[in-house]
Amino acid sequence: MSTIKGKAIVAQSGGPTAVINASACGVIQTCLANDDVFTGVYGGLNGILGVLREELYDIGAEDPAELERLKRTPSAALGSCRHKLKDLQTSRADYERILEVFAAHDIRYFFYIGGNDSMDTAAKLGKLAEQEDYEMIAVGVPKTIDNDLAGTDHCPGYGSVAKYTAASVLEAGRDTEALYTHDTTTVHEIMGRNAGWIAASAGLARRSDEDAPHIILVPEVPFEKDRFIEQVRRCLDKYKRCFVACGEGVKTADGQYLGEAGGQFATDAFGHRQLGGAAMAVRAIIENDVGVKCRTNRAGTAQRNAMHFASATDVSEAYEAGVAAVRAALDGVSGKMVTLERHDDGGAYRCTTGLAPLEEVANGVKLLPRAFLDDSGTGISQAFRDYALPLIRGQADIDIGDDGLPVYARLSKHMVAKKTQRQYAVG
Amino acid sequence: MSTIKGKAIVAQSGGPTAVINASACGVIQTCLANDDVFTGVYGGLNGILGVLREELYDIGAEDPAELERLKRTPSAALGSCRHKLKDLQTSRADYERILEVFAAHDIRYFFYIGGNDSMDTAAKLGKLAEQEDYEMIAVGVPKTIDNDLAGTDHCPGYGSVAKYTAASVLEAGRDTEALYTHDTTTVHEIMGRNAGWIAASAGLARRSDEDAPHIILVPEVPFEKDRFIEQVRRCLDKYKRCFVACGEGVKTADGQYLGEAGGQFATDAFGHRQLGGAAMAVRAIIENDVGVKCRTNRAGTAQRNAMHFASATDVSEAYEAGVAAVRAALDGVSGKMVTLERHDDGGAYRCTTGLAPLEEVANGVKLLPRAFLDDSGTGISQAFRDYALPLIRGQADIDIGDDGLPVYARLSKHMVAKKTQRQYAVG
Repeated sequence: MSTIKGKAIVAQSGGPTAVINASACGVIQTCLANDDVFTGVYGGLNGILGVLREELYDIGAEDPAELERLKRTPSAALGSCRHKLKDLQTSRADYERILEVFAAHDIRYFFYIGGNDSMDTAAKLGKLAEQEDYEMIAVGVPKTIDNDLAGTDHCPGYGSVAKYTAASVLEAGRDTEALYTHDTTTVHEIMGRNAGWIAASAGLARRSDEDAPHIILVPEVPFEKDRFIEQVRRCLDKYKRCFVACGEGVKTADGQYLGEAGGQFATDAFGHRQLGGAAMAVRAIIENDVGVKCRTNRAGTAQRNAMHFASATDVSEAYEAGVAAVRAALDGVSGKMVTLERHDDGGAYRCTTGLAPLEEVANGVKLLPRAFLDDSGTGISQAFRDYALPLIRGQADIDIGDDGLPVYARLSKHMVAKKTQRQYAVG
Repeated sequence: MSTIKGKAIVAQSGGPTAVINASACGVIQTCLANDDVFTGVYGGLNGILGVLREELYDIGAEDPAELERLKRTPSAALGSCRHKLKDLQTSRADYERILEVFAAHDIRYFFYIGGNDSMDTAAKLGKLAEQEDYEMIAVGVPKTIDNDLAGTDHCPGYGSVAKYTAASVLEAGRDTEALYTHDTTTVHEIMGRNAGWIAASAGLARRSDEDAPHIILVPEVPFEKDRFIEQVRRCLDKYKRCFVACGEGVKTADGQYLGEAGGQFATDAFGHRQLGGAAMAVRAIIENDVGVKCRTNRAGTAQRNAMHFASATDVSEAYEAGVAAVRAALDGVSGKMVTLERHDDGGAYRCTTGLAPLEEVANGVKLLPRAFLDDSGTGISQAFRDYALPLIRGQADIDIGDDGLPVYARLSKHMVAKKTQRQYAVG
């Protein structure tokens, strides 16, 4: 098998993470180092949207020092989007347009860093390329703070959000501890729409009984109001305070999200969407039914970009995942996503990369296993600690400016001249 | 003047900060080092509440290593409260009770670390002690993330919350930048009920025009809905995204807090209090009147305890303020609060401690000067940068455990036997 020569495109998709740029850096630096194969490295402005619109930029024209700094830069510096392509029948025009743009620029390598929707897009694009006899290699790089991708032990992005979340809960927990005579309870809302991996990571902050969080609510365990009220009361009896780590995707047994429960827990004031999310609903229960004051914290997008306290392990694995994607492509591998494989070397954690079929990842979702929670379902087990602790070790080394604040990369994005001679209306 | 011998008590009051324990550490270590004067060092369990209830503990019995670690521990490890004593007439029984407890334990030194309410309490207590001929020294140590205390250039606690806030806004701003095709606007709510000092610190993240935050809302500048909508629209035209740093205490010209505006901006779903605070109200305006998607972030209590990215300058000044309080007391000074004085050594920042009368601090409040904002009133000026940047320099060195998370001190709080032979009902 001879290696195809041609341009590479790298694109990011979905919600940013602290380390998606580290993966991009791994892809980019490895492509640039193999310029006998890769005749250019392009970026898609806002991911697949940029490809559809033929808004491409030349990553090879960026300052190498700024590219190197991507390793220590949060969010998606290449630009991201939430544009989801449907199946080949429904969205065939979109897939064909992508191939049209690829062909126009002789793009033969597609490195897509994202979650399962992105892997789905890459898989379908690969299939169409084969049908249409367009020689192309598509390799996926996993990315999601949610840690819910199938086929990989864990996802780049998770270790960093877990580390930051645990540290924030540790710190905010001390606030509740100091001020329990006034601010008796705190609900700390944590990202993760369908899976409780990040909410569970808050439990790492609890090294002793009195530490926060006292109750962890995850989407995988149905929320029962009466049981929750009873738990909060018991906690107040024991510690005089209660700190709740609340996954944003917590739902009742009938599948209703707490944050969207409408009249049941919180009134939707805008008609079409909830006002405050899960933490607000839980606060309403605590204030109305338990009758004590409750504060809410909700770091929002700050949590998934908290490079200032990111995991060094996560950064390094994210970079290596990017490198591995290009190495696989150089070996002629296509239709696969890079995976992270955990090895236990006599108790010491070691991680290598592997490969899984894109389709397998596209159609799977990995929820938090019940065994990672304790009997109550509102605390973590030792098995979860063993799983998660190696992922948050080490603190990522970032550049700090003279002003005392982090210095992050921003790409110049030198746009490439369009070649397809047509505007494409993105649906 | 001969130095009084007797016990010292140190107490913390009000909302925690990243460095209030550093100040306590300065007081405690300096007292313990001068045991020829201080016959013991006590803590009040939850500040003045603990004194009123005679719930005191012996700080001298703590592990010195754990006391040393207070320097790098956020929140109020001594325990805090929000119990406010009124004037001497109304709350005379409370003040007398404090003196009763002090006399019973031969407490002759009162070190109170807090905001202006605490300075007020300390001032009034000192006055009553004089009237009643109880020989006692009261010295205050400033503490507030809000930075609104009179008589001091800045307050310990501010530099750290400013550093963390600026870093979070810098990072969350990159999220909005990467995902502007979907999550077009973000409102990041920042603490500061009456003053915009912390909200303004978000502006430090904006090193270039395109950086977040594009609009800063502070309580000192009345919120005008139409003008705000216009500003957001202009920002979207220019950058395709808009990031708003929103002080929690933002209010309209008639003094109504946005977060409590009831029917005007956001519906109060629980009848007796607002659902979401200022950010939710601003989000409603952006989604309803500008018509683009808006995300909200609200770090809540996590922001004021973020020792994991605290300012080394702040930690060191907080410690020195504690030391200076004890040195002043040893010099026979009473009725004063330690202040921080800024010196400009040919452009280099230098800070020393001074003293201000407690009454002056108790009755003053220092709002963000208009000159610290730009002409629009929704951005910061160079004068503010010059003021704030030295305060956020350096990163506090914290202990990190084998688990990759910070290790913070927790006191054992060995309770002291009661001596006053009566229960006191705190009003």
